[in-house]
Amino acid sequence: MKKGVMRPGHIQLRVLDMDEALKHYVDLMGMIEADRDTQGRVYLKGWTEVDKFSLVLREADQPGMDFVGFKCLDEATIDRLSAELQAAGVATEEIAAGDLKGCGRRIAFTVPTGHRFELFATKEQTGKWGVGNRNPEAWPRDLKGMKATRFDHCLLYGPDVPATVKLLTDVLGMDLAEQVVDPEGKQLAGFMTASMKAHDVAFIEHPEPAKLHHASFFLETWNDVLKAADLISMTDTSIDIGPTRHGLTHGQTIYFFDPSGNRNEVFAGGDYHYPDHEPVTWDAEQLGKAIFYHDRQLNERFLTVLT
Amino acid sequence: MKKGVMRPGHIQLRVLDMDEALKHYVDLMGMIEADRDTQGRVYLKGWTEVDKFSLVLREADQPGMDFVGFKCLDEATIDRLSAELQAAGVATEEIAAGDLKGCGRRIAFTVPTGHRFELFATKEQTGKWGVGNRNPEAWPRDLKGMKATRFDHCLLYGPDVPATVKLLTDVLGMDLAEQVVDPEGKQLAGFMTASMKAHDVAFIEHPEPAKLHHASFFLETWNDVLKAADLISMTDTSIDIGPTRHGLTHGQTIYFFDPSGNRNEVFAGGDYHYPDHEPVTWDAEQLGKAIFYHDRQLNERFLTVLT
Amino acid sequence: MKKGVMRPGHIQLRVLDMDEALKHYVDLMGMIEADRDTQGRVYLKGWTEVDKFSLVLREADQPGMDFVGFKCLDEATIDRLSAELQAAGVATEEIAAGDLKGCGRRIAFTVPTGHRFELFATKEQTGKWGVGNRNPEAWPRDLKGMKATRFDHCLLYGPDVPATVKLLTDVLGMDLAEQVVDPEGKQLAGFMTASMKAHDVAFIEHPEPAKLHHASFFLETWNDVLKAADLISMTDTSIDIGPTRHGLTHGQTIYFFDPSGNRNEVFAGGDYHYPDHEPVTWDAEQLGKAIFYHDRQLNERFLTVLT
Amino acid sequence: MKKGVMRPGHIQLRVLDMDEALKHYVDLMGMIEADRDTQGRVYLKGWTEVDKFSLVLREADQPGMDFVGFKCLDEATIDRLSAELQAAGVATEEIAAGDLKGCGRRIAFTVPTGHRFELFATKEQTGKWGVGNRNPEAWPRDLKGMKATRFDHCLLYGPDVPATVKLLTDVLGMDLAEQVVDPEGKQLAGFMTASMKAHDVAFIEHPEPAKLHHASFFLETWNDVLKAADLISMTDTSIDIGPTRHGLTHGQTIYFFDPSGNRNEVFAGGDYHYPDHEPVTWDAEQLGKAIFYHDRQLNERFLTVLT
Repeated sequence: MKKGVMRPGHIQLRVLDMDEALKHYVDLMGMIEADRDTQGRVYLKGWTEVDKFSLVLREADQPGMDFVGFKCLDEATIDRLSAELQAAGVATEEIAAGDLKGCGRRIAFTVPTGHRFELFATKEQTGKWGVGNRNPEAWPRDLKGMKATRFDHCLLYGPDVPATVKLLTDVLGMDLAEQVVDPEGKQLAGFMTASMKAHDVAFIEHPEPAKLHHASFFLETWNDVLKAADLISMTDTSIDIGPTRHGLTHGQTIYFFDPSGNRNEVFAGGDYHYPDHEPVTWDAEQLGKAIFYHDRQLNERFLTVLT
Repeated sequence: MKKGVMRPGHIQLRVLDMDEALKHYVDLMGMIEADRDTQGRVYLKGWTEVDKFSLVLREADQPGMDFVGFKCLDEATIDRLSAELQAAGVATEEIAAGDLKGCGRRIAFTVPTGHRFELFATKEQTGKWGVGNRNPEAWPRDLKGMKATRFDHCLLYGPDVPATVKLLTDVLGMDLAEQVVDPEGKQLAGFMTASMKAHDVAFIEHPEPAKLHHASFFLETWNDVLKAADLISMTDTSIDIGPTRHGLTHGQTIYFFDPSGNRNEVFAGGDYHYPDHEPVTWDAEQLGKAIFYHDRQLNERFLTVLT
Repeated sequence: MKKGVMRPGHIQLRVLDMDEALKHYVDLMGMIEADRDTQGRVYLKGWTEVDKFSLVLREADQPGMDFVGFKCLDEATIDRLSAELQAAGVATEEIAAGDLKGCGRRIAFTVPTGHRFELFATKEQTGKWGVGNRNPEAWPRDLKGMKATRFDHCLLYGPDVPATVKLLTDVLGMDLAEQVVDPEGKQLAGFMTASMKAHDVAFIEHPEPAKLHHASFFLETWNDVLKAADLISMTDTSIDIGPTRHGLTHGQTIYFFDPSGNRNEVFAGGDYHYPDHEPVTWDAEQLGKAIFYHDRQLNERFLTVLT
Repeated sequence: MKKGVMRPGHIQLRVLDMDEALKHYVDLMGMIEADRDTQGRVYLKGWTEVDKFSLVLREADQPGMDFVGFKCLDEATIDRLSAELQAAGVATEEIAAGDLKGCGRRIAFTVPTGHRFELFATKEQTGKWGVGNRNPEAWPRDLKGMKATRFDHCLLYGPDVPATVKLLTDVLGMDLAEQVVDPEGKQLAGFMTASMKAHDVAFIEHPEPAKLHHASFFLETWNDVLKAADLISMTDTSIDIGPTRHGLTHGQTIYFFDPSGNRNEVFAGGDYHYPDHEPVTWDAEQLGKAIFYHDRQLNERFLTVLT
């Protein structure tokens, strides 16, 4: 958090059918419904999140990600970073407070990979769901399904990962925690963090811009990954791969799809990062192991991404 | 244990190179070397096993299983079961005590699927490795690799599973714990147990006789399955599938290959069985889920078996 | 299962207030209510149990155990064991089928420690709760609280443990899996099993007869023991000790009390036993470690038992 | 990390006998010996730590803590914080680079609770032990004992916790993540973090200054806490309490003592904190539950601290 960017605070995903989507995100994944707005968007959160929401679902004709927003320390940080973005030649747009219900003004901009990013500093805080912050119990008893604890990060595909990594590093003060490089040293993937987490957002080089690979949610343990896998099977949910471990970050993971085709991840564990750590580097010839540590090869589906 | 058959007491596997095999079974899987004999065979055991050995490795030109042996309550049981086998039209052969080092006489016979089975009642007992049975610690501190606790079962492919199931049930007093049946009710797979374990030996219908699918070893937890998967990757061991869960028995599992091409399983958990339980039945159209509960489809490798 | 005794099939406990008891056994421990009878008794089971019930609660003025019943292979076994008990000088009483709803006739007798035991062979089978035995899912989604899987064993206090161990061994064909002996070799505790489990019933030498130390229920993992401990705290349930590990059996455990004062255990893991295994022996001077492996000393409460 | 303080980078503990201490910290806890210096001090680290060392052991007549040092982003941060400390009336002392082997200059000062704190920005980086940062494996195969991953935090006792919390908040930019308050609102305990961790250093109000309660090291899972507990028993190490969970931070924990009497903790899990989170507050009347979530009462030993 060198320049006041704290964490990925929300992601807006497009879903084809809201009822189906809510069955998936609420009943299966265990997200908490927080609110709805007049546009029909539904606001969700993981139970450990203090802010009112972290996942916004919007009904649309195509699945994918509308934007990912990063929460900053305060409004002054927003002003400063907005000016720095403009100075770096990045156009910014201010979205008025209230456009997302309970959220203050947001500064939007597009990163070189083509994805829409936002910065915001103010959001209604409703506290950890079911436990609060006064003598809190260890966990609430009435969680559903996978008991996802929080929106954790997203993995995005698009062109010019190095320029995106540079922008997030130089202007937003994020760190490159892990990367994949080809034999010529070109950066094919960059995993960026604003905190101790192994990644708050990650990028993989891809010719088409603005693609979503997956939105990821955190679980407490490898045991929870097993139960998530079981639930995927019990509910006839489309699985991608897992349970397994990633090489990159070493998180314990499973990939699956929501009814609209958005890929989700739930994972546990994973390495930690501090700003004085050199990035962990994976060589492209080890990409299979870097992505899927046990199988040591990519499946074809891994290369499929959404607009 | 209706008729005195207690458990699968040993399996003899053929390996192409003994040094490579020992690196695999001892350094990677954590089996304990117990002895060697003048034929060059090496005797191993899991640390929780009280008997001297449960896995015998024999160097040969082809991988696969020579035989699997079941330990019975006492010598009188052996005599009785031997007579019953003959009465059922099954030829038996007596192998003298000492042929396997530390093991008493064995009665060998062939089941309809073409596999060589043995019964024995006497084997040297060396106690749980590293802990003994007087004020025993929870586990020994110097276990290696996957820390396999015991030889658990094997899965065999061959023709006429129903006749094999019937023989093991009627003559040996084992139970059918789980089965797969086709739409006409034909038994395609039978999982047999002599105890509370979900399977002590299992069979899948296959045109060629006497095939080995895998030899399986027990781990304590799903966490140990993860670490086994990690070790498979660290040692560049050939993986088949996992970590995942089976539908049949619900065990948590990973499949991989020894350097000779014998498939191994390590697994944790799994259902229990008592003699008054109806067998659990899986319909053939659910075979994918029955075998690999999360992926819900077989991989092609699953169908590969060894002579 | 040398003589047809399979497992502890039910235990009847006395509770002071049935509503409070059900909140405890159903909402907290996750047992399933199966039936009630005209005497006001409530029948419960763990979700993995195939039989209709394993725990019977009876409202009374004093907590404690009325009896523990062992399920046998068939009615002929009951007749044979009944005759053997009488031949051994143990009076038996036959209780008519239907006295326990859905249960066949029972043969009752008193063991030297003063506890009432029963044998039965017939009980209505309702199958694993929520999953059945045709293409069964890994677990049912709507389990409550601790998700206890089955009634596992009970620990009983009373005089003359050696005579009780001898009776269960000689007449019922059970095995002594573990024991505690004093410096003179006198058996102070005996852990008996009819199967692979480390104990199906256990005894500790105590001057007063017919005391209950605890009734124990099985959980799947050490993680579940943690969550059980959390739930004990969240519900202000009286805790005894844990989470910890036992030395005897090496199970991972927590002890707590039902609202009537009956001690419960939930536990995971634990060693396995086969009839050819020598009993594991703990020396009395290691009793602290034998009971509570981590603390290596008994708490005073451990010595408290119920009529 | 509002003002450039990243993490607790090292702690120096006094031990009565270095050989005994190394058996404890290396063989039992699994710390890695990194170096020794001419004063006889021994430098250790957890395997995931990138810096050369995090634990310094010094042989002395009394156990306890000499100092805890925080690593900052860069030397400029050190200069700025040093000036701010002086401006806040806190005397600082500069210790030359090399006093701790491989460590740059350190700025030392005393906090109101009487403990010696240090700030430093430069330390030799030797990388994650056994895995490095180029295509790193998930974990090194030759870790010992508890496999402690890192020095995590310490808990300190002394007078005037509120003034200490204020100093760390205002001058060092740390956050109050959790606290205990009495009915009058007086802060009896403060848990401070510079990152996402629930605590990097914690304080409990106590009349005598400069006391050490414990130094804490991180484990990966609750399963590792069980194995740590087992190892404590196997090695006849003095246990304090656990395995259990804390209410404060909800970490899963066990306390024990090194051979000199310094209390250690190993723990897993625990909540996360961001700078926009209100502190979690525990009421003093819930102190038992706040400290030991399962037992809900303090043991007497918890109150024992070292000079």
